[in-house]
Amino acid sequence: MRNEIDFEKLFCPRSVAVIGASAKNKTKFGTLYIKANLDCGYNGKIYPVNLEGGEIYGLKVYKSIAEIPHEVDLACIATPARYVKAALEECLSKGIPWAQIVSAGFSEMGDEGKKLEEELKVFPERGVSIIGPNCFGVHCPRCGLTIIPGGGFSRKEGDVAFVGQSGGLAVDLGYASIGLGFGWRRMVSYGNGCDIGAVELIEHFGKDDAAKVIVAYIEGVRDGRAFLEAVRSASVKKPVIVWKGGLTESGARAVMSHTGSMGGQAEIWECALRQANVVQVHGQEQILDTVMAFHFFGDFRGRGVAVVGGGGALGVSASDSADKVGLKLPLFSDTTRRAMEEILPPPGTSFNNPADVGNPMIPAHILEKIMSLSAEEGSVDAVILIQILHHMTYIMKKQLDLPEQVALKAIAQHQQVAKVCGKIARKYGKPVIQVLPPIAHEEEKIELEALLREARAVSHAEGVAVYPTLERALTALARVSLYNRRKLNDRWFV
Amino acid sequence: MRNEIDFEKLFCPRSVAVIGASAKNKTKFGTLYIKANLDCGYNGKIYPVNLEGGEIYGLKVYKSIAEIPHEVDLACIATPARYVKAALEECLSKGIPWAQIVSAGFSEMGDEGKKLEEELKVFPERGVSIIGPNCFGVHCPRCGLTIIPGGGFSRKEGDVAFVGQSGGLAVDLGYASIGLGFGWRRMVSYGNGCDIGAVELIEHFGKDDAAKVIVAYIEGVRDGRAFLEAVRSASVKKPVIVWKGGLTESGARAVMSHTGSMGGQAEIWECALRQANVVQVHGQEQILDTVMAFHFFGDFRGRGVAVVGGGGALGVSASDSADKVGLKLPLFSDTTRRAMEEILPPPGTSFNNPADVGNPMIPAHILEKIMSLSAEEGSVDAVILIQILHHMTYIMKKQLDLPEQVALKAIAQHQQVAKVCGKIARKYGKPVIQVLPPIAHEEEKIELEALLREARAVSHAEGVAVYPTLERALTALARVSLYNRRKLNDRWFV
Repeated sequence: MRNEIDFEKLFCPRSVAVIGASAKNKTKFGTLYIKANLDCGYNGKIYPVNLEGGEIYGLKVYKSIAEIPHEVDLACIATPARYVKAALEECLSKGIPWAQIVSAGFSEMGDEGKKLEEELKVFPERGVSIIGPNCFGVHCPRCGLTIIPGGGFSRKEGDVAFVGQSGGLAVDLGYASIGLGFGWRRMVSYGNGCDIGAVELIEHFGKDDAAKVIVAYIEGVRDGRAFLEAVRSASVKKPVIVWKGGLTESGARAVMSHTGSMGGQAEIWECALRQANVVQVHGQEQILDTVMAFHFFGDFRGRGVAVVGGGGALGVSASDSADKVGLKLPLFSDTTRRAMEEILPPPGTSFNNPADVGNPMIPAHILEKIMSLSAEEGSVDAVILIQILHHMTYIMKKQLDLPEQVALKAIAQHQQVAKVCGKIARKYGKPVIQVLPPIAHEEEKIELEALLREARAVSHAEGVAVYPTLERALTALARVSLYNRRKLNDRWFV
Repeated sequence: MRNEIDFEKLFCPRSVAVIGASAKNKTKFGTLYIKANLDCGYNGKIYPVNLEGGEIYGLKVYKSIAEIPHEVDLACIATPARYVKAALEECLSKGIPWAQIVSAGFSEMGDEGKKLEEELKVFPERGVSIIGPNCFGVHCPRCGLTIIPGGGFSRKEGDVAFVGQSGGLAVDLGYASIGLGFGWRRMVSYGNGCDIGAVELIEHFGKDDAAKVIVAYIEGVRDGRAFLEAVRSASVKKPVIVWKGGLTESGARAVMSHTGSMGGQAEIWECALRQANVVQVHGQEQILDTVMAFHFFGDFRGRGVAVVGGGGALGVSASDSADKVGLKLPLFSDTTRRAMEEILPPPGTSFNNPADVGNPMIPAHILEKIMSLSAEEGSVDAVILIQILHHMTYIMKKQLDLPEQVALKAIAQHQQVAKVCGKIARKYGKPVIQVLPPIAHEEEKIELEALLREARAVSHAEGVAVYPTLERALTALARVSLYNRRKLNDRWFV
């Protein structure tokens, strides 16, 4: 009978033995792993292991695991596949409770690999729990433990847990999150998942109060019933965002050669996940958009959205998109519309919702009035402000006849607008979202991208999420709303 | 009976009279219009007109249109709505063949505005053709004529025509296109379209051999039959990309208050447009993605795609996305797979298609071999290379132990990779696309965005389109393929 699994030793190990690091070859996965953890500032001990001996980045290389004179919580195994079993035996003798097997060449490689992987499956019961094989393993911002290309990950601990079969996706998400306002509780890339997999990890993070959101990338599961039970239990407490890959013919083949998984049938998966109130997404962009949404306005369960900003086509697009995702742009009351028209008289403006302010250069204090009037409407549950910084800055420079070299950041009103958004969100207790489309793509306009990033950062600091398009903002809002409404009603088909 | 319409005088007028410009107020639309055209380097004469007289940006202000001592091809009317009729009378007396009415306050404003707009409708037959009202008007890179916020538009003439009811969209597209490899033949924002509208403009650009692609943003049409006939005729010769706004309940209300248009029913519109082999899109991003596709690989009509690059989840995503849009990732032949495995042996790699090269740091000459082998496959009609510059550059810096201040551009291999892509595209006569996802969003990593933009520019120079995600690349490929297959078979339901 297997003992209870101590996940804390996996996520915050006091020490890590790295099997397969080499003093002679900096590009070996083991060596890269050590470098990444040094870069990330891992606060435990690192013990490289290699028969060659020597020294790696100032760390003594032990010739065997047994030779390490200290206790070891986690072994990172990065040897060729055929030596992994022997390494696990050594871990067992040494009493190491966790092994993450970075090495590839197992069930994703056909029959021979499958056989090698089978041989690993005895170790968990004997005392060594396994993450992998064919994975990048574990990242924890608290202790600084990281994955191979994650040397530059943020050390700011957040509340989002990632569980997934793809190491590449973990890397992308780890870096992409840095500018998006949220942080990770822990990330686990478990690859083929011969022992610990989605079920155990989702159960774990479901019970972990410091994890407020769970993200899972799933290629296949061993036990469908157990998986659904795990996501169902977890999603009663917190949102579980799932990207299920391999649900098409080509996709099924791809997951087979990636992690040796069975893809499954789209309709069955989608229906089962919906019943478990899982937030279903497709692709990395949707994961990030949805996590941001739960981070910034995780309690949202309304349907009515006010859109404030410039441009008729954007308003049309907002209206069409809202309808498609199940949200509404409720008509403003006559009182509200007239009040808005007094502030910004037509022609050129229009205040039915969307509130088309007719001009990209409306000062922040005027925007504040329009947004307040929107937020005061009983039918409005969230306010979206769309700002095209490109126009504003171009026109401001031209109108003010400012010399070309004046910094955009010095003349743009992004700081004031962010504060206005934050103020309104707090005053009315309704989410405010900024949409900042990146209009300029050429090399010469990189300054505008820098401005946009600064605008995003100041907005995030005000608790205001930023999306690049209205469609993505509305889709994210709708996902949060649907999750909460289903959860609240304790029935899934709302 | 109306004379034949001379569009050349609209697009390349030898002179423009600007009614409603003011020497005293730089923020008046007329004044902004003059400034924009000066900034854009319009090569004709500009005659400001205002009873106030004076001088605007060094140009003499005439007190009336009649007072202008030269011939005028185009009048830009930017007065309050109630003065527009009188201005048109003056245009008529002066023999000006074209008026673009920037002023708002017409049918988008309810009954009173509708009445004002009705009064304008007699002028076309009397001799003044009208663009607008409630529009931004015309942009032509050849002569430098531009719209109000278009002072910074590119003067490089391209082959894409834009026709749309939204001025804001025209502005966004005008600027967004600059970094995306294609250029505009002409752009027309016609607002409420009381005279010249979608039908006339699409007919015109359908016959204009210098326009290879037509983009239309439609909120409503006066004569559905004529519109469908126009797009059907045009799309026999060239792709017509249409975004139809206002096809939902909220959207219909938005188009009514934006341009006084009737939205219509989604199913009917979509079916009618499909029968006319129109390329249907939703939103600005899809317009740009699709135009790029026709620009870079407009003849594509295959279905088989090879995906080369790193990361299992990306490959899975590619496979799933391809299936969804009607493309395929055909299995590589055994010979090809074995040849690839010899170049990059497993484990860690996988060559069923997607070709997972297992590592973000594969040198360009190795990528070339893998991509060539892909392109040689008979079942492969296009090759997509996905490169995550973020990983490559991070790992390269760490591996090479380069100091932090070394420029990413100096160590990245984007130049070589772009050349490889271009070479393969030419050699095999199959489109090659690069996918360069923007992973880093924070202010500190702006250098990476600059690298990405440079990589995009060098790729475009090699005739290789760049997309930020696999999904968007595949969707764009699928749209081109479908258009061409339908066109070729001369029946639409293929």
